[in-house]
Amino acid sequence: MKNIKVIAFDADDTLWVNEPYFRDTEQKFCNLLKEYLPEDAINDALFKTEMSNLSMYGYGIKGFVLSMIETVAKVTSNKGNLELVNKTLALGKEMLNKPIELLDGVETVLKKLNGDYKLVLATKGDLLDQERKLIKSGLEKHFHHIEVMSEKKSNDYKKLLKHLDCDPHHFLMVGNSVKSDVIPVLEIGAKAIHVPFHTTWSHEEVKESLENLEYLEVENMSEIIALLK
Amino acid sequence: MKNIKVIAFDADDTLWVNEPYFRDTEQKFCNLLKEYLPEDAINDALFKTEMSNLSMYGYGIKGFVLSMIETVAKVTSNKGNLELVNKTLALGKEMLNKPIELLDGVETVLKKLNGDYKLVLATKGDLLDQERKLIKSGLEKHFHHIEVMSEKKSNDYKKLLKHLDCDPHHFLMVGNSVKSDVIPVLEIGAKAIHVPFHTTWSHEEVKESLENLEYLEVENMSEIIALLK
Repeated sequence: MKNIKVIAFDADDTLWVNEPYFRDTEQKFCNLLKEYLPEDAINDALFKTEMSNLSMYGYGIKGFVLSMIETVAKVTSNKGNLELVNKTLALGKEMLNKPIELLDGVETVLKKLNGDYKLVLATKGDLLDQERKLIKSGLEKHFHHIEVMSEKKSNDYKKLLKHLDCDPHHFLMVGNSVKSDVIPVLEIGAKAIHVPFHTTWSHEEVKESLENLEYLEVENMSEIIALLK
Repeated sequence: MKNIKVIAFDADDTLWVNEPYFRDTEQKFCNLLKEYLPEDAINDALFKTEMSNLSMYGYGIKGFVLSMIETVAKVTSNKGNLELVNKTLALGKEMLNKPIELLDGVETVLKKLNGDYKLVLATKGDLLDQERKLIKSGLEKHFHHIEVMSEKKSNDYKKLLKHLDCDPHHFLMVGNSVKSDVIPVLEIGAKAIHVPFHTTWSHEEVKESLENLEYLEVENMSEIIALLK
């Protein structure tokens, strides 16, 4: 993999743990409402609400909390009390204040690459939230800047490269989502490395066939050093 | 004003109407809760909640809606019903779906400057929301890209210029907030033009003296063309 100048890293579940916190919050949320409906039905209602709000709220914790609150009303047929809403707001604040749990190999890799490449963090999340995580993580010094993308489709990557004044063949994306970090990047003629994470949000699951897609997959982030040589 | 290469425009209340929609929503929100407290007291409670959440939620409509919902519980001493919460969520969605009302002179100015300068949109708002407004406004073609800033203090502008690979003396900021678009920009040695708007959020009001600050103020956006010559 030669000629790479800019390496963009996805943030959540690529650099640090994220999705398990959402799963954990969903479980607590279901627990809050357990007298109204069983867990599966609440998770279903929440996911439906999230999907119907996605184009309006986008990704990130705040939109997730707004969808949970809307689900409180739905699941309780408007009969729940405001205490449930307060507890849901508190679950959201708890998520926003979570400590950072770096994934294995991340720190070593960024240290080694910084200087030889322009490193950017490319995320669909909320800027404030990702900045906060980057500062808490201690990784800030390795990154040139954060790129917030409202979506990660091929057109969004085109915009990103225009913005970075970077040719597709000089660009490498590293991330845990085949749907968001790999397929659209290959589509615009850039390179991608997939670093799978054990937990994936249903919305990020890939339905199409992955045959004929040319990308590399590594088990541990530290393996990308050898691939770049 | 010579040597300018990059012009950054604030978005809300600089390119299009925004703050009046917040004022309007606050009024509807107070109306929802009028049996509990008078308007002033509700607005006070809401502003306090917003300020205490600001470092966690940041700017934008979603954080505002979360703070309104928290205020419903406070103002009603947890005795309100979920119908109030649903109506508050609906107020938020109404804001997110507002049409765009361009401010006078904006379109002409962007058309004239595009080509001679790199134009960027620099905003504290939510990326998805600002992208949506930019597309609705029809102004997208004039901008190189959107820069979302989690704050607009001098350090944030330093980061922005690093990211744009732009020297401070090549940078001009145009915006309606002296606090966010003028003072911190002058502090890092760049230039700023103030285009006042009739409605300002209390959080954006300037307390310090503006004497000795070297910036230009125009009444109408179209006046900046002459200033750049």
